[in-house]
Formats: sequence, C-alpha cells, structure tokens
Amino acid sequence: MSSQSHNIGTRLKRVDARDKIIGVTRFLTDLEVENMLHAAPIYSPVANGRLLSIDGSPAEGDPDFVALFTAQDIPGENQVGVIIEDQPLLADEVVRYIGDSVGLLVAKTPESAQRLARLVVVNIETMEAIFSIDDSRDASSGFLHETNLACQHQVKRGNPEAGFKASDQIIEASFETPFQEHYYLEPQGCIAQSTPTGGIYIIGSIQCPFYVQKAVSKALAIPFAKIKVEQAPIGGAFGGKEDVPSEICARAALAAQILQKPVKIIYGRTDDAQLTSKRHPFQMHYKVGVTNEGKLLAADIKLEENAGAYATLSSVVSYRSAMQAMGPYVIPDISVESKSYYTNLPPTGAFRGFGSPQAAFGHERIMDIIASKLKLDPVELRLRNILKPDTKTLTGQLLISSVGAEETLRSATQAANWSSQDANSDSRWKTGYGVSLIHYGNCLGAAGWFMDGSGVKIKIHRDASISVAFGLVEMGQGALTVVTQMTAEALGVEPSRIMVMPTDTDQVPDSGPAVASRNVIMTGNAIRDAARKLLPILKEAAAELMQCDLNEIKLEKGLVYSTRNNESISFEELTNYLYLSNRPMDALGWWHVPALKYDAVTGTGEAYFTYSYATHVAKVKVDTLTGLVKVEKIWASHDVGRAINPAGLEAQIEGGTAQGIGWALTEHFKTDLGKVLSDNLTTYLLPTALDVGDIESIFIEDPEPEGPWGAKGVGEPAIIPTAGAIANAVSNAIGRPINSIPILPEDVLEMMNG
Amino acid sequence: MSSQSHNIGTRLKRVDARDKIIGVTRFLTDLEVENMLHAAPIYSPVANGRLLSIDGSPAEGDPDFVALFTAQDIPGENQVGVIIEDQPLLADEVVRYIGDSVGLLVAKTPESAQRLARLVVVNIETMEAIFSIDDSRDASSGFLHETNLACQHQVKRGNPEAGFKASDQIIEASFETPFQEHYYLEPQGCIAQSTPTGGIYIIGSIQCPFYVQKAVSKALAIPFAKIKVEQAPIGGAFGGKEDVPSEICARAALAAQILQKPVKIIYGRTDDAQLTSKRHPFQMHYKVGVTNEGKLLAADIKLEENAGAYATLSSVVSYRSAMQAMGPYVIPDISVESKSYYTNLPPTGAFRGFGSPQAAFGHERIMDIIASKLKLDPVELRLRNILKPDTKTLTGQLLISSVGAEETLRSATQAANWSSQDANSDSRWKTGYGVSLIHYGNCLGAAGWFMDGSGVKIKIHRDASISVAFGLVEMGQGALTVVTQMTAEALGVEPSRIMVMPTDTDQVPDSGPAVASRNVIMTGNAIRDAARKLLPILKEAAAELMQCDLNEIKLEKGLVYSTRNNESISFEELTNYLYLSNRPMDALGWWHVPALKYDAVTGTGEAYFTYSYATHVAKVKVDTLTGLVKVEKIWASHDVGRAINPAGLEAQIEGGTAQGIGWALTEHFKTDLGKVLSDNLTTYLLPTALDVGDIESIFIEDPEPEGPWGAKGVGEPAIIPTAGAIANAVSNAIGRPINSIPILPEDVLEMMNG
Repeated sequence: MSSQSHNIGTRLKRVDARDKIIGVTRFLTDLEVENMLHAAPIYSPVANGRLLSIDGSPAEGDPDFVALFTAQDIPGENQVGVIIEDQPLLADEVVRYIGDSVGLLVAKTPESAQRLARLVVVNIETMEAIFSIDDSRDASSGFLHETNLACQHQVKRGNPEAGFKASDQIIEASFETPFQEHYYLEPQGCIAQSTPTGGIYIIGSIQCPFYVQKAVSKALAIPFAKIKVEQAPIGGAFGGKEDVPSEICARAALAAQILQKPVKIIYGRTDDAQLTSKRHPFQMHYKVGVTNEGKLLAADIKLEENAGAYATLSSVVSYRSAMQAMGPYVIPDISVESKSYYTNLPPTGAFRGFGSPQAAFGHERIMDIIASKLKLDPVELRLRNILKPDTKTLTGQLLISSVGAEETLRSATQAANWSSQDANSDSRWKTGYGVSLIHYGNCLGAAGWFMDGSGVKIKIHRDASISVAFGLVEMGQGALTVVTQMTAEALGVEPSRIMVMPTDTDQVPDSGPAVASRNVIMTGNAIRDAARKLLPILKEAAAELMQCDLNEIKLEKGLVYSTRNNESISFEELTNYLYLSNRPMDALGWWHVPALKYDAVTGTGEAYFTYSYATHVAKVKVDTLTGLVKVEKIWASHDVGRAINPAGLEAQIEGGTAQGIGWALTEHFKTDLGKVLSDNLTTYLLPTALDVGDIESIFIEDPEPEGPWGAKGVGEPAIIPTAGAIANAVSNAIGRPINSIPILPEDVLEMMNG
Repeated sequence: MSSQSHNIGTRLKRVDARDKIIGVTRFLTDLEVENMLHAAPIYSPVANGRLLSIDGSPAEGDPDFVALFTAQDIPGENQVGVIIEDQPLLADEVVRYIGDSVGLLVAKTPESAQRLARLVVVNIETMEAIFSIDDSRDASSGFLHETNLACQHQVKRGNPEAGFKASDQIIEASFETPFQEHYYLEPQGCIAQSTPTGGIYIIGSIQCPFYVQKAVSKALAIPFAKIKVEQAPIGGAFGGKEDVPSEICARAALAAQILQKPVKIIYGRTDDAQLTSKRHPFQMHYKVGVTNEGKLLAADIKLEENAGAYATLSSVVSYRSAMQAMGPYVIPDISVESKSYYTNLPPTGAFRGFGSPQAAFGHERIMDIIASKLKLDPVELRLRNILKPDTKTLTGQLLISSVGAEETLRSATQAANWSSQDANSDSRWKTGYGVSLIHYGNCLGAAGWFMDGSGVKIKIHRDASISVAFGLVEMGQGALTVVTQMTAEALGVEPSRIMVMPTDTDQVPDSGPAVASRNVIMTGNAIRDAARKLLPILKEAAAELMQCDLNEIKLEKGLVYSTRNNESISFEELTNYLYLSNRPMDALGWWHVPALKYDAVTGTGEAYFTYSYATHVAKVKVDTLTGLVKVEKIWASHDVGRAINPAGLEAQIEGGTAQGIGWALTEHFKTDLGKVLSDNLTTYLLPTALDVGDIESIFIEDPEPEGPWGAKGVGEPAIIPTAGAIANAVSNAIGRPINSIPILPEDVLEMMNG
C-alpha cells in the first residue's frame, strides 16, 4: 500500500522483550484463580499391561484429597487422538507406556496432588513390551493397536528400477536418528474453569488452542461454542505443546466441570519427560543410483519411525519425511516409504521440523557418501543436482519461483571459504567441514490442506490504537513482533500503535495449528486480507475529511496524506472521524493456502505450495584424545523469501541451529524398559553457549509470490540441516562415516581407534 | 432467507432463565479474583463547598488499610463527563453534591473499605447550595459550573404566534414530575485488574462497556487497545448503569493500576442511592392553541429539568424531551424549549425513556385538559390530531411507513371498552379511565447519530454450534434471547445451536451505548449484515457438497436443502465441510442508522429515523376514604413493528408499565439539603405485584422497513405513557386535575376534600 516499506525488513525490538526481561509476564505457574484446586496424573508404572483396578483409598483419607477421576467419569468420548483415534483420554483397559494416564487426582495444593497421586495403587497385569522399531515391525501378535503400523506415506514416481539400471553406481547406507526431548523451559500446564453457562474456559501453555477446544468438546460432550481456550504466555513449545495440551486440558476440564471449581495442572519436569511426546527416532535406508558424473538417477528410500504408544502426529511426520526424503535435488525415478510403528514408549509427536531433520540427516549423509565414492566435492555434487526454477521436486512438483536453494549453497560455502578450508593443522584436534542442504515444505501441505487456513481480527480504536487478534500463537518465536510489523505495514501506521492480543478461540476463526512455520505466511496474508477490507473505509473517510479524491489518499507511518497537495492529517484525526461517521473499524482477515494438485496414492504432485531452502556449513574440531566434537562455527544461509524482521530471523536461525547441535551432539535420550532415565538437565544435556559456537546467519531473499511481502516460513528450517552438516563435518574430520546421532565422544573415540 | 419465519415471532424461552432461576449465574458480588482488594468511595458530606483537605490518618493505622487515592494520583485527565466535560473523576477543588467523591479508600475487605472510608476526614468550606430548578435558573452568581444551564435543546417550527391567533382556544397548564431512582436490584460495581502488558481488564455491572473503555483510557492515559471491558451478568440497569459505571470503573482501574492488584468496588445500597444518577425531575409549562373542533394549531412548550450536580446525559434527555414534547400529534406551529439546570443534588442522567415519560406526562395531561375544555372525548381529540403515514411530526419530519399510532389507540380503547366504561358504582371507590398516547424516537436520533452504529461477530464452529458476540448488552431486557432468535432466523438454524457471549470490548466493534431501545434494531440489523456475508459462503459450500447450484440451496431449521430434489444434509455436515474446505466461518456484522436530515439550530427535521407508538389505557379506583389510588388494569397497546419474541415483549411491557406505575404512585424520592432520605426499600416504595394490577399487552405490527424483520425498539415505550394514563384516570375519577406525580394518597385526599 505504501510505495516503500517502513516496517518489513526492519529490526523491530521484540514487543514482548521488556515484560519478559523485567519479569512481569505471568506464565501459567504465576496464575492463580480463586478457589483453585490442583490435579496430578496417575499413570501406569509399566510399559504394557492390562489395567485391573485403581485403588484410591490410600489417598482418600488425606485432608488435602478432593477427588479421583478415572475413565468412568468422562461424559463424552474417551478419546484424544489428534489424527487417528487411538488414544484414550484416560486409559481404561490397556496401558501402553509408562506414563499412560489412568486417572487424575485432585487435591488442595500442587504438592499434595503430586504426593497423593503417587499413593494411588494402579493394579496392572503386566504384558510383554515392545520398544524398538524392529520388534514392532516384525511382531506377528501382541500388537499395541489393531496393528503395529501407526501410519505410512509414500512417494512412487517414475521407474526406480529402470533408473538403477541406468546408473553407473548404486550407493547404499543406513542411518539412525534418536529421540529428542523438546525441553521447553516451562513444563506443560493449564487451568480449566467451568463457566456459569455450562461451558469451559481454559487458559494454558498451549500451542494449538483450537485443538484443545476440540478435545474438550469431545471429552465433555459440550459444543465448541461453550468452550473458550486462551493461550497463556508460554515458555517454549517446539511442537511439544501441539498435541499434549489436548489431553492435559481435557482432563483438567473434566475435573473442573464435575467439581465446579477451577482446576490447575502443571507437570513436574520428571512427569513431563516421562509422559509427553518426543521427536520420532528414525531408522533409514537409502539406496541411490548415480552416474559417474554425479547425476542422481534413482532412489529407493525406506524410513521407519518409532511412534511410541499412540500415533498422535506421526502421520504428519511420516508425510513430511516422505515428501522431503531426497532433499532439494532433481531425481526422476524414486520410491520412498515412510512408516511409523507403535512401541511401548512415550508417544512421539510434533517437534520442530516434523520429520524433516531426520530425513535431512539421511539425504545429506548419503549425498556426502556419494560424493566420496565419486571423489566429487560434496558441494559440486549438490550443485549438479540442485532444484532450480523450472525443475521438479522428488514428488514431481514443478517449481516456478522463489527457489533459492542454489543461492543458499553458494553463499554459505563462500562465507565458509569452502574451497580453501583450514588444514587439519593440530595434532590433537582434527578439523572437519560439512555441508548440508535442505528444502522445507511450507505450511501443512497436501495431507493437511483441509485445515490450512488462518485468520486475524484487526480492531482500530477511535483513539488510533489498534488491537490485533490472531489465530496462531506466540511461543517464543517472535510472532507478536512480526504480527505487529505486518499489521503496521498493511495499514501504513507505526508499530507502537499496535497491541497484539493473547490468542483466544473466541476472538478469531479456527486457524489450525501453530506449527509448520505457518505464522508469518498465514497470519501475514490474513492481515493483508483484513487490510484490504479496512483500507477502502479508511481512505474513503480520509477523502471525505480532507475533501479530496479517495485515490489521492496515502497512509504512511501514522500520517494520512493527500497526494494532491501533500497535506496531511494524523491517524488519530482519521480514526476519530471514522468513529464519528459510524464506519465499521473492525475487520476479519482470512487466508488459506492455494489448492494443491496432489495424488495421495502415489504421493506425487504438489506436496506443499512453496518451499524454504537452507544450507548449513559446519566447521568442527574433533578431539582425538577424548572423541569430543566441538562446533567451531556454522554458516547458515536461508532462503526466507523476504525477511520480515532480520533480528528475529537471526534468533530463529541461531535457536534452531543450537537445537540441531544439541540433537547431533549432546542430547542423549535414554530409556530403560520404557522408563525415561534422562528426565532432567543433569542427565539430558542441552547445549550451552559454550557448545554452540559461532553462528553466522545469511539471508537469501527470493520472494515467494504467495507469501506476504514475499516471505516464507522460517521457524523450522534452521534445525533441519544442522545435524547432517555436523555429521558430514565429523566424518570429514575423522575419515569415518558418522551415520547416527548423537555423536558421543566415546563412540567417536571408538571409531577413530577402530 | 427462508420463505417463512421459524424464529421471529415465537415465544422462545429466555435463554438465561434457567441459570438465573437455579442460581448459577454469577453476578459481580459472586466474583472473586485472587489477591483482590476492595475499595469504597470517600465523598462529600455537604451539598456544596470548597475542598480544603483530606485527612486519611484516622484510617491509615488500621491493619486492613491499603491505600487512599485522591485526584492527585490520577495519571491522565481528571475528567469523566460523558458528553460535557464538567465532572471530575475525583473532585479536587469544589464538591457539588453529597456524594461527590473526593477519594477512594482501598482496604483488604469490603467491610473494612466501607468502615475506613468513613473514618477519613474531608475538610470542606461549606457554600450555599441550590436544590431547585427555579433557584438554579434565577441565580445570578454562585453558579455550579460556568453557568447553571447545563444544556438545552429546542424546536422552532412554523409560526406559533400566528397559530395561536388562529386558534379558537388557548389552553395552558403546568406540570411537574419527580426524581425516580432506578432501583436496580444489583447495586453498581466492578472489578478492575491491571494486565501484565500495562493494560486494564474490567469486569463490571455495566450497561455501556465502550463508555467505560473510554473513561479508563482518559483517566489512566493508556490506549483503548490495552483496555478490555467485559460485562458481568447484570442485576438491572434501566439507564442507571450507562454513565455511572464509567466513574466507578475508572476509579477501580486507577487503584488497580497503581497497586498492581485486582480492586473491587461494590456500592452499598445507601451509597448507591446517594451517589448515583436518577431520572430528571421536570417542570413543564404547556400552552396549546386549538380550534373548537379540537384541531391542534400551535404550541409553546417550556420544559425545565433538574440536572443535579453534573450534566452527564442531560443533553440526551433535553434533546429527546424536546423532540417528543407534543407527542404523536400533527401540530403545524410549535416552539419547544427544553433546558437542564445544575443543582447541588445527585446528577440526573439516563433512565428508561430518557425524558420521554416526563414529556409524555405533559402532552397527555394537556390533551385531556383540552378535551375536557372542548367537551370532547379524550380519544376523539387524539384521533383528530394523530400522526399517520404522510403526516409530519412536531419537528416537521414526514412519516412514510410504520406509523401505528392510530392502531394502538383504537386497539387499546377497544380492549378497555372505552366507549362503555364502568360507572362509578361504589360509594367508597371511584373508578376512572385514562388514556395516554406516545411516540418514541428509535435509537439515538440526530443529536447522537455520530455513535449510532453497532456490530456483532458471528462465529460458526465446525461442530455447528454458533457463537455470537454483540456490542450491546443483556441487562434484564431479554437481549440474549432475541439475539439468539435473530441469529437463528438469519442463518436458518435452530436457536439451540446459538450461544450469545458476554459483551466484551475486545470482541466487537464499538457499538455505542446499550440504551434508547437500540438492541433489537441495531443488533438485529448487524446480524443480518453478518449473515449476508456468511450465507453465500455456506451456500457455495453446500452446493459443492450436494453437487447442485448455489441458488438451489435453502437453509432452514438446521437443515440444508437442495430445492431441486429436496435432498437435505444436516447443518453439522455443512459446517464440517466448511471447515475442511478452509472456508472462513466467522463474520463481522455492522449497521448504523440511516443518515438524518436535521437542522440543529431550529430543532427541525428528522429527529429519529423511525418511531415506536403506544397507547395505554388505565382503569383506576380511588379510595375516597384514604385517597389511595389503585390501578385495576392497564391495556397497553404497542406498535412494535414486528414482535421478535412476544413473551419477551410482554415482559418488557409489563415491566415498563410497572415501573411507570411506581413513578406515578408509590415511588417518592426525598432529599433534605441534598441528602437522600429515601435510600432503601422501606422509604422508597417500589410497586409490588399488589400495586401493579392487571396488564393486558396488545401488539400492533406495522413493519418498519429499516428494522430487522420489521422490528422497532420496545425497551422503553412501556414506561412512557403509563403515568399520564394513570393521572388522566385519577383526574377522571375524582374530577380534579392531577398535574404532578407521585399521586400520593394524602394529596388526593386533600384535592378531593379541597
């Protein structure tokens, strides 16, 4: 609307920074409601078994005991599966993992709720448990559900057999990636309150308020219209608060509804680690046919995922990993199978990247292995196959524009001085470089297209302040700030006027989940839609007030100009006049992703409407004495379409890269017979500032026509290539292939000595 | 949209009845917030004076004392005048009535707040006070404000002097009407909470949330976008919660903002009676010229109002009483002056009818006096002058359609057997009949046109439940029920799907005040606007789903039909498909009253866009022994345009009539040197069921083209003609003119004996 952008591309300070820094932001743990009770889950202590009885009597005598609820108390459906209906809200026949909740204990204080929950005796007939993908796949009886296959997706394109025949070389390798714990700083939690009109009001640390609304509706058998779900300020999510809050909130709502008192649940860290979802471990086998010149001809890829006890979002992970399994390369003949298997472990669900980091580990390791076999520079091999405009992705999707893969690869390797790498100069420390290139399908893709619309509500007040409600959420990623910038830009006002409201299901249309790097694209486009409705009204009023033609009005930086004579009035004058002339000053905005031509049977066609691209180059040093891998620097080049807020983008890239470094090197998720052993920060090592090293962010801005101001999704891409880049770098340093993570010192040492 | 109406005109049970009857509705007094403090006003004990100092030390030592705030603590403007800026939020120089607040005492409990507020010493240099309209008008110095004239409106049309010359008779009389206390069952109150982002969240017993938002913004100097005002379920308002909550909420917000804790204020009944607004007492002089055939030719009308200490909504009362001063009669030459004068009494403000009941008392008494002079039947006199289509109102407004005055007059008198009235058969009890006919300008009129727009937000959920947010409020009048019906009708669904949300400034556009019988018209039209946006989307989706043409789709009673083959799907199937096809399912609706051609200088032209009409016939018995007036029956015929809910309409008519009976007969508001003496139910007598007698409601449905489904405003009209009808009936019974109210037994006795 304005000839040049005043807000897009500027480093606006995080609008929520001050409140978080000085400590006035009230997280869920700070929220108290009059007469509030506290609840804690009662869960299975064994990984698999038949539930015989629940004996609450040891707890019932306690003066702090209030109530114990089990599956029998659920008035609606005992079902909380988000895609596949395989997960009871409270288990009533079979328990499938240590953490499978069979009851909810309500007490007067959080401490007594925890204490009394542990007194409840859960009698279970233990059954044999399955923990590995292999055991799950190969089982012929004793299935966790009707079958052990939770879900699958595939890509079948061209004729891989013919492709392999035409290949000069066929290269195969297997890879493994582990669980990852989200380790959001704030554990799961919510407060549920019954409303006087028979409804439920939830405030929680939640990523997808509309999922929670649905879950509560189903469990309590009350209509959506009586359920309000509001997001409290949230201390991290990373996908871990996509599915899990549905169960927690529905349980709290159940207790609140029956007791007619507010009920709060906050998980302790141990419970959070044991009960909630993780990143899917993957087993991958890659078989790729190439010419001697390094042209990829065919691939046969098998991805297998450990889904844990319930499917939750496995289908999304399975879909996305299949669609991206061979990375941003041209390959005409391909077969991909991606299958998720149930095991008696905590369910695996959504986690930043949604299967992409796992698949990226596979395709970027195999590319380096191919390069090594062909004695080609890994960058050169990638350049020979890279996606460009007018090429097709592995699903056969023709790319038209905003294909910045090559620019990210060239800029990252150039920044890293790839062609003149440091020699391995030190006798103790070996230096290695690794490159990793990825594409990331924006938003939910063809499999999730049916819920890929989002909305906003913009309210202009007569005093010229502006409220914006949006359907996605702030979860640490800086959404409030970019929503502020995009609204300011769309309306031609200063960001200081804008107040973004906490996400609330009452305020905005069901906007789907706050996942898949959707916020900038979905919310940005919805803001533009709302502005398209508001601007003609604003301009008409301004023209009336300034006695000029509507087309001569320009809104910019909080001033309203008439281009005829360059006179201006303030935005306040305009909004006051809007009010006095009875003009509507609120507008809803809506956007959904374009229709996608996709064949679900073959898994071919337009898997996503556009892709982000990124290249990470890692420089590592490996300590030959201890096996320790130290990341010296990561050059992270990202094709973001358009940088809305470069500062926020850097933070996203640095955060995602750090989380990728943790997954690759330090985070070691361990279980024993289904019990999570790494359930705190002394046993589950998050990377510290010392582990992360230097990160250099590079932005490639190749505008996406469908993106708001050209922008594409940026929330997840940074974690996706990191582990592959590090593994490639360590392989490069030690001359041995690193085909699984985490890359633990003891393993590196053994490989070097082996 | 549907060929016949399934919801309009049905007696849908009040949707909030059950919750109120079984006691689960939580009124403000039931609401508790964690860490809440309580505040009470410190106010002037004298009616006029100069504030010297406030000494809080007697209270400060108390362990329950928290804080004492005065004008000095207000960060923004110390101004809460709703139209004229004459009223400080906390008085800091002059106090103008007993109740003028100079401070706010905050304590730990409601009781200690009240107790400690009384300990604070307010030093005031007393000045001479003015209590009567006469003293205020005639004062030449010692004005309450710059002048004692708070505001005025007039109508100057034609040539009254010539009209009087042409008249056969000129008839004059003076009338007086008293204060009236709203006596809502729930006193004023609110809870204010500061929000972590520096804003304020108010929940209160309030009639106009957007007024409160503005007042808080001004007092605290924070933008509208940071202020959320929500209406709690409300125990009556009647106009008394239009202006007053602004001051109460702004004071609570001040304390909450400074203390950073929730602060609750609930007035005790005595404080509520002393501090809050009342109905304006009127002094009226009517001079009317008529022909011997009873044709009205000219009028000169002087209305004078006691505005109390601050203008608040006097301007609206003055405007409306002027515009309607001669009632629904054709009169070519007229002069009306309506003036409000400041006095040292509690401010008078909005009260059901807004000056109309007062003016109606005047014009209906003078009509009976004229009829008596001309020896004409009072009904006949009225019929000879009554407004009809293609006649002009006293302001010169040409009426086109929906002019049901005559039908109300004919139907009411016919039902009452006017032409063969009961004789005065009893020696002790004298029977009398009185008729009273009124018109009522719908919505805010030309003087308030600038804020006569209202909005709704309709949200269709995927489970086919529907949330409706509206900008006006439920205050006992049945708004939730008619909003439910109108939404059901507009969308072709069953009312049971619909959930109307509490009014909340965040949810909807600023919809102006919930006054002036605006709800059905404004909200109804806004609902239709929202439906106009939603229906094409619903139909397009249905056509897609049912594979037929969009124009063949019909929504009715929760089913979706294709008229081609009469197949149908459920509304649930449709909404689920809407969701899955990414269609927007929320819509905002907006409506503002049509532009009005009105000349503010002469007070002529289109004063309101349409009018409601009503005739009440009262049958009374007067006890010649005690002077007691007993209302036997009131026949109340109302032209409502279209009855949305006949049951609710009857309740409105019965409630309004009862309130009119109270004003006419039992409610005796007394003050002594500015102190309210009638400050509880033993001294201020509300009419009981025994006092009200029988009320027969008659609806005339003469559809208003601009009204939703033809409906017009019905909230206020029932109180307007009642006192006039009773006074006419008593005059008829005792043969003496009753020219003032309340009609007290002692006065009647004296008149009969005098």
